[in-house]
Amino acid sequence: MEEGTVTQKAALLEAIKAEDGSAFLKITNELHYADVADVIDHLDSEKMRIFSIQTLDNEMLSDVIPELPERLVEESFAALTTSQQRALLEETPDDDRVDILQDVSPETREKLLLLLPRRDQDLTRNLLRYGEETAGGRMTTQIGILTADQTVRQAIDTLKTIQEDTETLARIFVVDADERPIGKLRLRDLTFNPIDTPVRDLMVPVEHTILATADQEDAANMLRKYDLVVLPVTDEFGHLRGVITYDDAMEILSEESTEDIEKMSGISGEQSEDSYLKTALSTHFKRRFGWLSVLGILAIASGYVMMRYEEVLTSAFLLSLFLPMVVASGGNTGGQAATMVIRAMSLGELGPGNVLKVGLKELKLGILMGGFLGLLIGIVCVALLPLFASLPSGMSFTLFGVAVGLAIALQIATSTLTGALLPLGARAINLDPAVVASPAITTLVDISGMIIYFTVAKVLLGL
Amino acid sequence: MEEGTVTQKAALLEAIKAEDGSAFLKITNELHYADVADVIDHLDSEKMRIFSIQTLDNEMLSDVIPELPERLVEESFAALTTSQQRALLEETPDDDRVDILQDVSPETREKLLLLLPRRDQDLTRNLLRYGEETAGGRMTTQIGILTADQTVRQAIDTLKTIQEDTETLARIFVVDADERPIGKLRLRDLTFNPIDTPVRDLMVPVEHTILATADQEDAANMLRKYDLVVLPVTDEFGHLRGVITYDDAMEILSEESTEDIEKMSGISGEQSEDSYLKTALSTHFKRRFGWLSVLGILAIASGYVMMRYEEVLTSAFLLSLFLPMVVASGGNTGGQAATMVIRAMSLGELGPGNVLKVGLKELKLGILMGGFLGLLIGIVCVALLPLFASLPSGMSFTLFGVAVGLAIALQIATSTLTGALLPLGARAINLDPAVVASPAITTLVDISGMIIYFTVAKVLLGL
Repeated sequence: MEEGTVTQKAALLEAIKAEDGSAFLKITNELHYADVADVIDHLDSEKMRIFSIQTLDNEMLSDVIPELPERLVEESFAALTTSQQRALLEETPDDDRVDILQDVSPETREKLLLLLPRRDQDLTRNLLRYGEETAGGRMTTQIGILTADQTVRQAIDTLKTIQEDTETLARIFVVDADERPIGKLRLRDLTFNPIDTPVRDLMVPVEHTILATADQEDAANMLRKYDLVVLPVTDEFGHLRGVITYDDAMEILSEESTEDIEKMSGISGEQSEDSYLKTALSTHFKRRFGWLSVLGILAIASGYVMMRYEEVLTSAFLLSLFLPMVVASGGNTGGQAATMVIRAMSLGELGPGNVLKVGLKELKLGILMGGFLGLLIGIVCVALLPLFASLPSGMSFTLFGVAVGLAIALQIATSTLTGALLPLGARAINLDPAVVASPAITTLVDISGMIIYFTVAKVLLGL
Repeated sequence: MEEGTVTQKAALLEAIKAEDGSAFLKITNELHYADVADVIDHLDSEKMRIFSIQTLDNEMLSDVIPELPERLVEESFAALTTSQQRALLEETPDDDRVDILQDVSPETREKLLLLLPRRDQDLTRNLLRYGEETAGGRMTTQIGILTADQTVRQAIDTLKTIQEDTETLARIFVVDADERPIGKLRLRDLTFNPIDTPVRDLMVPVEHTILATADQEDAANMLRKYDLVVLPVTDEFGHLRGVITYDDAMEILSEESTEDIEKMSGISGEQSEDSYLKTALSTHFKRRFGWLSVLGILAIASGYVMMRYEEVLTSAFLLSLFLPMVVASGGNTGGQAATMVIRAMSLGELGPGNVLKVGLKELKLGILMGGFLGLLIGIVCVALLPLFASLPSGMSFTLFGVAVGLAIALQIATSTLTGALLPLGARAINLDPAVVASPAITTLVDISGMIIYFTVAKVLLGL
């Protein structure tokens, strides 16, 4: 963060503490709304937050509220008069308005909707029908729309009347009589061309659209892949309904990555809108304790396997030296493979048809890695172990080395394959790959590691 | 992906196989360059790739080449004549040109640089000085620049002359006599205002800039946080040197997330520019085998601890039932804590001053989670275990339950703290938190789990 911003944020905090409205307004006018929201979010006293919300001018408030975490949105609206609420909602762009309304209770939502003019009310209700995580739920309907037979002069006049309402004029769309997008152009095409040029001559085809019901992650990936400023969103009849903008795409990409990373570490539930430090201890607890206890209890299965092989372990206790390695290597390689596959799936690289290819690739890799590491450890057992340790009489270090090396190779090969296939399997039955795969892998390969290790030792060493 | 695109990509492949140049050009004209690059990248035959590169028109080629993985860039240039190379380099925007030149060998780079006009040569050499992962290395210098005393008419004339060269006119900057950015405006401000309005009256202050030497991730986070289309990049004297655009930010956010996720799973090295399936087996091996073997070998330390406690384990082998649980719970909770902290650091939420706060929060959380799970398992040991299992004579299930529960609580509390503090510690000594922390945690807490479990059992059960 820039130094100037830090100083200004500190000054803003002082103004709030002193309830100095004019200093407050002066500073907020110079700050970015994201920084103002940041300061308000970090206020511990409700009184100070309400002072801030009531003092902000309407334009800034309409930018700040969508940046606040869910729990503060309802509180903020409660602090305003009905006419302030109405003015605020009218000022807020439609996609932000939908976000805000999704953050308040159903009763408040209904009450606020009724404050809007009929047209905006219908529009907002329509947008609210789409799920929060769909393209439709994230789109804005405020876009520049022209028809092909308009001239540059007419187009500029059309856009001029709506420019204050329009989130982005970076891309302007041309629709046919059925509201289907047939072309797009840039504001510069209008600015730099003779005023009687027909729009038809300036537009280029619309190459990419997305359905309103599609997943927001697919939309963000398209914006990223094709370097788009905006992506047009259509309904099932192909009518242009709105656009997803680049800033939403950045937000979605970041949210989805955090979600993937968290799920892969066994952290459940929605990512908190608050920062790590602001998130309550109880929220952290709720998000982590579930998987921690489930996985812990499942790990007793590995303990059960270990108990069943008491005889094998106690008759050559030197086996315990490599037991954690065999188990851990399975978890490590399984985790690596799952990460590779989950990430490739998130980036849209792996279709359902690729299962066999992925399986074959990971099996080869598993055999290769397991073979190398198994061989290495086997050699260590035969060459170095006799210098430090002893085995029960009659048992050879050579056979011991072969058993340990073979177990490592088998465990790594099978765990690599398991790690790669589990996420694909989860998706095939419509479960989230990241949620299912990562915790399940560790538990599964812990158990398989125990079984493989003790079985190989039992057979080869005759225990 | 849209259906139409899939069909067209298949048709393009057919045209390449048939070496049908006119069909090839017709289809590529209708496809997005990212899709054309995708098809070329997936060609297995060098001959077909070279046919494609040689057949593409110059404009499309300048978009396609930056999208190709590193290994194909050199090959593509080698397929072109010197004059084609020159035309291509001149057509390519400066930031893409720098990316391309970073992908070829130093000899080729020098040869290609000499093809450029003197001015472009100097400019490109200057950009090449910045590291690939800095703001300067990612910026484009082709932006619209005005002075405050120009009128709208003069401004439009200025921009018109450079518009073909200019990557984005979505934000236009106003500089003072020292090339310092003093304001910005949108093209719409020029389009919709009287032609004699001075630029000074239309511009708004530049709120955010970034140093050319700053990390690209910081730049991307600023674009994301402040919803910017472009972020101005300045040198150490505050001179405007270029901008980072929203599409670069999306790319950076996606790359950095993949990097974080991969590192956290013990996958080393640079993310491959190829997709998962196209990446060679040897590359996958190289990126995974290192950590897999290092962590495997370190896990022998856990085995060594286990061997040292042979007596404790064998005198009450029922302890083995909960050994994997104690060890795994440490890894799970440590991993969760590390993920939370690493992600918060990536999003710029945690400064060096927050170490104490983080430590305290995670310690509380660890005690809470460990306490609950320890209590639960302790009760299970006392209430249910006697029904299924037996202990050596003289040993009570109550004491056994207390020992197991206490060990679980201690292991979870210490591992949670370790997991949270290791990434912060890594950063404090300038190591990458994600690289150091994740693999180190599992190994550390595996060992600590063994020691805690056996020590508690030894003391409480008098073994």
